[in-house]
Amino acid sequence: MSITYEDVVAAAGRIEGHAHRTPVLTSRTANDELGAEIFFKAENMQRMGAFKFRGAFNALSRFNEEQRKAGVVAFSSGNHAQAIALSAKLLGIPATIIMPEDAPASKIAATRGYGGNVVTYDRYKEDREAIGRKLAEENGMTLIPPYDHADVIAGQGTAAKELFEEVGELDYFFVCLGGGGLLSGSTLATRALSPKCKLYGVEPEAGNDGQQSFRSGSIVHIDTPKTIADGAQTQHLGSLTFPIIQREVEDILTVSDAELVDAMRFFAARMKIVVEPTGCLGFAAARKMKEELRGKRVGVLISGGNVDIERFAALLS
Amino acid sequence: MSITYEDVVAAAGRIEGHAHRTPVLTSRTANDELGAEIFFKAENMQRMGAFKFRGAFNALSRFNEEQRKAGVVAFSSGNHAQAIALSAKLLGIPATIIMPEDAPASKIAATRGYGGNVVTYDRYKEDREAIGRKLAEENGMTLIPPYDHADVIAGQGTAAKELFEEVGELDYFFVCLGGGGLLSGSTLATRALSPKCKLYGVEPEAGNDGQQSFRSGSIVHIDTPKTIADGAQTQHLGSLTFPIIQREVEDILTVSDAELVDAMRFFAARMKIVVEPTGCLGFAAARKMKEELRGKRVGVLISGGNVDIERFAALLS
Repeated sequence: MSITYEDVVAAAGRIEGHAHRTPVLTSRTANDELGAEIFFKAENMQRMGAFKFRGAFNALSRFNEEQRKAGVVAFSSGNHAQAIALSAKLLGIPATIIMPEDAPASKIAATRGYGGNVVTYDRYKEDREAIGRKLAEENGMTLIPPYDHADVIAGQGTAAKELFEEVGELDYFFVCLGGGGLLSGSTLATRALSPKCKLYGVEPEAGNDGQQSFRSGSIVHIDTPKTIADGAQTQHLGSLTFPIIQREVEDILTVSDAELVDAMRFFAARMKIVVEPTGCLGFAAARKMKEELRGKRVGVLISGGNVDIERFAALLS
Repeated sequence: MSITYEDVVAAAGRIEGHAHRTPVLTSRTANDELGAEIFFKAENMQRMGAFKFRGAFNALSRFNEEQRKAGVVAFSSGNHAQAIALSAKLLGIPATIIMPEDAPASKIAATRGYGGNVVTYDRYKEDREAIGRKLAEENGMTLIPPYDHADVIAGQGTAAKELFEEVGELDYFFVCLGGGGLLSGSTLATRALSPKCKLYGVEPEAGNDGQQSFRSGSIVHIDTPKTIADGAQTQHLGSLTFPIIQREVEDILTVSDAELVDAMRFFAARMKIVVEPTGCLGFAAARKMKEELRGKRVGVLISGGNVDIERFAALLS
């Protein structure tokens, strides 16, 4: 079963009135720096602070009566956990989130704050996927993975759909890449609404499994990468996301953690917005392609703004 | 000559296409906290990072040929300096900005970056107003003060005009108060577009000259107050701003520096925006009036986002 732009359109209908239609921001300073016209889709201003809400809400809103009663289970230490917990709360579905026992207290608290039932595990000894599957099987719960799921991919594609609807066709589009849910969803929207747009996925240098996979033609697995872009610390692309990316994306680029901090500082100092390290990937990559982008219309997807404020302050100072 | 809403409308025409029409942001978390519907007018996303651009551009765009040639002079260590420098550059008018020699290097650099000719003075020995007047007289330059000027007031009123045009009438409106340019301009727009709205000016506790003036009925002068809200470190209201405020405003409220930091943290952590301490005054005051605001439609003017990133990080950690 292949995922199409029609699925993105259907997802947009389901999330309407629940997800924010986030603003598209512009900055004369950014335009001057790149000699281009840049449109930032600000998913840091999405509900719970990241695009992940779109895919989670779309997936959960398709549950049938039985699934709703039994509940959802998800494993995540980051934005997917909060997205599932909040979506489940809004839809009246019980949610169990499997998180590492050493996850930041603030993240566990945020997930509980959205009404999620948090189950912790020892990430050095236990396998979260096995725990998730066991919980799902024993209790009839539905497991929603963070990216490799048709409804999640379709939901994530709605951000790019909104961007093109608001600003029209673009020449280039930079999207951050972890497991590929956002990038593959964005690809579907881009091909439908701005067919000639060159689409780039962007990863942290240390976690370039996507780039390796793209260039070798098959999914490459890596160890959990060391990078400040915690939303892109995935070890491999998904079996659903990879083929879409492989088929439609121009290339996969990488940026260093130092370049991410520079971009984060730019967002805070010049655009007055808080962007988490992973959300800086797209703009950091665009800044390295100045020559090519001159005079072009460029889209940049800012994926989220969920960075611990103390950590944010430490990274900027 | 009294200033009216017609002047605000004329100013809106002059700044159109030059100033940003800044977004109105909402936050479910803020709404839940106050049990109200809150609309934040985000002037931190204005050009050069603060509402001051509106008044400066409006004032300079009214210069006649002779004034344009001779140039503008302004004294300011903050946002007004940058607003005049940028507006002058856009209009092709030479600008001289008088700044204290110990002003932060970043602010002097920013003003120069906008093309302003910076003249420094010793703020412990010299009088900036005298220097400004002397420069103006000797060279035929026009002095534009930071708030007590009809065109500045009318320009600042355009932010509130945009807010009411976008969201309709409001029950309450909180606006920060330094010299009163923003508050008096906002008053004109409020009375025209949302006549029953209760309008509050908000000052830092340490610099409550406006509150003292409002309650005593005449302009009270104070020493430069010690507060993190550097945009509200004015010593007195203006002879043009005070009568408007006195006539139309419900009351002047104060908040502590600690309450400003709390609001700043809320903006960064929950709304993902960078707001300078002065820009936090309105929301900090609204949070203290929870009971009264329940169920109401509330406007909050966020005046700017120009805070040194290192200082921002230090205040948040």
